Amino acid sequence: MDTNQKLNLTMLCDFYELTMANGYFANGYRDRITYFDLFFRRCPDGGGFCIAAGLEQIVSYIRDLHFTEEDIEYLRGREMFTEDFLEYLKDFKFTGDIWAVPEGTVVFPQEPLVTVRAPAIEAQLIETYLLLCINHQSLIATKANRIVRAAEGRTVLEFGSRRAQGPDAAMLGARAAYIGGCHGTACTISDQLFGVRAGGTMAHAWVQMFDTELEAFTAYCKMYPNNATLLVDTYNTLKSGVPNAIKAFNEVLKPLGITKCGIRLDSGDMAYLTRKARQMLDEAGWETCQISVSNSLDEHIIRDVLRQGAKIDLFGVGERLITAKSEPVFGGVYKLVAVEHADGSITPKIKISENVGKITTPHYKKLYRFIGKDTGKAIADYMCVHDEMVDDSQDIEIFDPEATWKRRTVYNYTAKELQVPVFKNGELVYELPTLEEIRTYCAQQVDTLWDEIKRFDNPQTYYVDLSQKLWDIKYGLLKNKTE
Amino acid sequence: MDTNQKLNLTMLCDFYELTMANGYFANGYRDRITYFDLFFRRCPDGGGFCIAAGLEQIVSYIRDLHFTEEDIEYLRGREMFTEDFLEYLKDFKFTGDIWAVPEGTVVFPQEPLVTVRAPAIEAQLIETYLLLCINHQSLIATKANRIVRAAEGRTVLEFGSRRAQGPDAAMLGARAAYIGGCHGTACTISDQLFGVRAGGTMAHAWVQMFDTELEAFTAYCKMYPNNATLLVDTYNTLKSGVPNAIKAFNEVLKPLGITKCGIRLDSGDMAYLTRKARQMLDEAGWETCQISVSNSLDEHIIRDVLRQGAKIDLFGVGERLITAKSEPVFGGVYKLVAVEHADGSITPKIKISENVGKITTPHYKKLYRFIGKDTGKAIADYMCVHDEMVDDSQDIEIFDPEATWKRRTVYNYTAKELQVPVFKNGELVYELPTLEEIRTYCAQQVDTLWDEIKRFDNPQTYYVDLSQKLWDIKYGLLKNKTE
Repeated sequence: MDTNQKLNLTMLCDFYELTMANGYFANGYRDRITYFDLFFRRCPDGGGFCIAAGLEQIVSYIRDLHFTEEDIEYLRGREMFTEDFLEYLKDFKFTGDIWAVPEGTVVFPQEPLVTVRAPAIEAQLIETYLLLCINHQSLIATKANRIVRAAEGRTVLEFGSRRAQGPDAAMLGARAAYIGGCHGTACTISDQLFGVRAGGTMAHAWVQMFDTELEAFTAYCKMYPNNATLLVDTYNTLKSGVPNAIKAFNEVLKPLGITKCGIRLDSGDMAYLTRKARQMLDEAGWETCQISVSNSLDEHIIRDVLRQGAKIDLFGVGERLITAKSEPVFGGVYKLVAVEHADGSITPKIKISENVGKITTPHYKKLYRFIGKDTGKAIADYMCVHDEMVDDSQDIEIFDPEATWKRRTVYNYTAKELQVPVFKNGELVYELPTLEEIRTYCAQQVDTLWDEIKRFDNPQTYYVDLSQKLWDIKYGLLKNKTE
Repeated sequence: MDTNQKLNLTMLCDFYELTMANGYFANGYRDRITYFDLFFRRCPDGGGFCIAAGLEQIVSYIRDLHFTEEDIEYLRGREMFTEDFLEYLKDFKFTGDIWAVPEGTVVFPQEPLVTVRAPAIEAQLIETYLLLCINHQSLIATKANRIVRAAEGRTVLEFGSRRAQGPDAAMLGARAAYIGGCHGTACTISDQLFGVRAGGTMAHAWVQMFDTELEAFTAYCKMYPNNATLLVDTYNTLKSGVPNAIKAFNEVLKPLGITKCGIRLDSGDMAYLTRKARQMLDEAGWETCQISVSNSLDEHIIRDVLRQGAKIDLFGVGERLITAKSEPVFGGVYKLVAVEHADGSITPKIKISENVGKITTPHYKKLYRFIGKDTGKAIADYMCVHDEMVDDSQDIEIFDPEATWKRRTVYNYTAKELQVPVFKNGELVYELPTLEEIRTYCAQQVDTLWDEIKRFDNPQTYYVDLSQKLWDIKYGLLKNKTE
């Protein structure tokens, strides 16, 4: 059986979600309202920030959440679930609340990207899929943003479908890369599904198919006079590829008055070959010919070859983007932070760990970003208990939660809540933005960061602080549990 | 729009496949029979061999290959394709031949894992999806095999869905990990779809949900007396987790006469904590309690902690397996190797490159493996032209294709063709093995390798040689094209 059919992804969950759900059901926790936060602990690649993505797929998933007869039969066959629980699953749907930061938002470690308030079973069952969606697309959007920034305004296309980790990784990866700032993709279906503009011209096979390279180029120019980008490295880039490209442009495009064209290099030293190719093209009067490259690129190589004077107009970035090769995991986690009682009171919950970094920040929280009114730049993020309010007409003192003597006062700022309501009582209350809107919003978000935060290596750590009340609750619980 | 619906994956192709196809159509290459090889150039992680996987998904894809009205409308909207070509796509299906190595086969760089013989347009259009399938699943199967070998017979479960690169990466990754030797997965739907046994017990949330850890453990043991694996690191592994687990086992399991149970650690130093936990469990009479660990594992950490005397029965391996984190790209490529003429004659094709490693081995080939009759071990692989035969009743001289003076004679061997016919004239002619059969075959395949090839780091390079005839053709073409 393959996955190319209508799949109910409700069963795309870790098996323990189901054993726990069955246990909650039997132990009277079925209607216990719980709060879970989805957050990550560090930025991949040592970066200073991340881009949140994947919410749209979560929305589709939550709306479609249900167990089919076949699902229930499968579970019954495992002989671990009570009949009452299996009966309950027949009408299962999501009835809770979800808040999330919009896709394209700049986010930092420890911040709740998604907060779920729901009966324990519902909140638990959606864990795996929520993490999978946010982890995957945030990873690729974040990596894409690094690569696009390295290209300093040049075009960056996502070229990695063939090296993606499965069909979804290709399709959704192209979407996430576009959110992060890529200008398009090679993946046709991502254009069809999501509107990520797909493009591309030829592979080496095209050149090999014809008796000579020149014939191949000429045929291509005749076929696509308005879109003629010729792959020049099948035999020898400078000795045959570029000269033949110039001949083909002269023979086919020149008589048509077309000046827009391109060459692409997929091997060899990009700094050297593109400088030489640029010179040859210019000398032949093809100053308008764009040079594309596409050989194992990432943000570091792009920055390096540009520093070395490479003449490149367009980067096609493949495997190192679509898999985020340098660090292919976005370590989002999903943790219980509070339970709500019948009287409406909320008890914060903490998870302690031998690894200090794995200790959670408890409670149902709010997440603010403080933006300087004069600069338009982000100053700090601030997490507080759900019933606290920030009044940005007043100065506010913030402090480092791990070095509480480090304090500063923030003034002349706007406080913006980062999460928006997405589901309320199981109903979608969020109007999904278009992909173009998300991409534009993402670029604006990145513009609010100081350059110090945007450095690729060893960036300044952005402030993500806790309110005094939240800090007191966290360290009170910590002290209590470890005594 | 999301991907959770019946998707026609025909459009999951690089856009250039379509522009080239349109060009082949217009240039009279529509019926030109071509041969493409899918091969890779080096093993990930510096390994000595890889495991081929992904063929079953290719079979589904090929059988379902077709363009819908919406696909054709989309393409028409791009204003690059001729009406004749779009008309042709309406009845498009795959009519060619495909040979492939069965899933689970041990494979080496430069070897054709898949060979396609088909009209140029068909062979070209399937490139992206074929690569994506083989690259993804071979990557994960190969990584899983490394991890399973490091565990030296202990159980290894795939736990990575939440960090997978999209839903397919979770589902198909669990499948590939099982082929590579994992014993099961946490991913419920992979059990349902593919029969990869799914299991799991509790997350930290279960422990936090109850007022005390002991209550949480006792409730779980009552719920699942035959499957009680308790997560002991929510608060403090040795001070509270293990003692509470022992109390719960004593209170619930002992009266039932149940001795099978387990604890799981998800943080802290595994070598130290598992030795201490083992001692505490043994002293309490729970020698039968299994210890599971699951914190950022891979083959290197598993080998290391076992060397340090860690007491572990089961490894749950997450993100570093499901993304093949240390090297998340399997660099398979798909290259034109020959074209066939109307009279049946075949012209070999080569792709040259500035990067020597990117030069292809031309021609429609056969791939043999020589197995020693006395040892049962693999001696060398041997690629020859399709019309050559190896007679394994005769000794055969082989030589290193890059150092042709290095020659040896192979004797007392069996020559086995590695590829099998999968499609003939567009019809499936291959009986797909079950997943269990694939997994068993994979284990047998790995057993045919000498330990020197199986070393994790700096393994001996396995011989993959060319016949004299094939070598002469390759270097003849190379000389000719570069002169």
